[in-house]
Amino acid sequence: MESKKSYKTFRYQSSVCWEAGRRGMLRSPGKPDLEISSPPEFKGEAGLWTPEEMLVASVNACTLMTFVAFAQHKGLEFLGYESDAEGILENVEGKYRFTEIILHPHVRVKAQEEAERAQEILASAHANCFISNSLSSPVKIFPEIRVG
Amino acid sequence: MESKKSYKTFRYQSSVCWEAGRRGMLRSPGKPDLEISSPPEFKGEAGLWTPEEMLVASVNACTLMTFVAFAQHKGLEFLGYESDAEGILENVEGKYRFTEIILHPHVRVKAQEEAERAQEILASAHANCFISNSLSSPVKIFPEIRVG
Repeated sequence: MESKKSYKTFRYQSSVCWEAGRRGMLRSPGKPDLEISSPPEFKGEAGLWTPEEMLVASVNACTLMTFVAFAQHKGLEFLGYESDAEGILENVEGKYRFTEIILHPHVRVKAQEEAERAQEILASAHANCFISNSLSSPVKIFPEIRVG
Repeated sequence: MESKKSYKTFRYQSSVCWEAGRRGMLRSPGKPDLEISSPPEFKGEAGLWTPEEMLVASVNACTLMTFVAFAQHKGLEFLGYESDAEGILENVEGKYRFTEIILHPHVRVKAQEEAERAQEILASAHANCFISNSLSSPVKIFPEIRVG
């Protein structure tokens, strides 16, 4: 008899409301409201989170969270994880889209023997990130593992 | 002689830093810090924005901002724009990814003759949204235009 693993489906909701100009409010019940804007180069206001940044941040954050989950599952205790991300928005055949998202995670581990495991877990997190899996643009990762 | 339009390339940067458990901080110079977490169903904390919600919000917000830009360009004055969004995260061949993102924008216009134009502008905004253009999952839109 064949054994099949069954997977749950999850749903994520939120709403946006226009305020004025190129500015609006992002809301989800029980979470802090977040003022959002177009980027300044598209006539938005500086100092506010933009849809473009939220997309790039969601990939970076999801890779972090997946790393934490996998590290916990594999029993790897790490000391720190910081990651810079950059998304490149380009016009391709008349339409703007992200053509590349680049992540630079810096992971700190206690000892040299954990560095290789951290590298493997990070590669696995990268390959299984829900957000990366949902994008048409490639996500490239350049990890750095430090000891101590 | 052939005339070619040249397009600019834009770059969007931010960083995430692990704090504890399945929680971290999202930062971008000059913008408010945003505490983030895995969703509660993936052992995160309730009440914080998650990568999954940020992805869905970025599509919804980008469609709004694109509508505002196109409406301004076409001289359509609208009274309001609110939009609920839902993203469906499913396991496909062993990997979780968003299989569908659904937007429900509600646009208010002053007069009936503007309703049709608003509908057209919204369809155009949907077709040109930078974030939708960057996803592998389909984005479906169910607009409602109200007068007054």
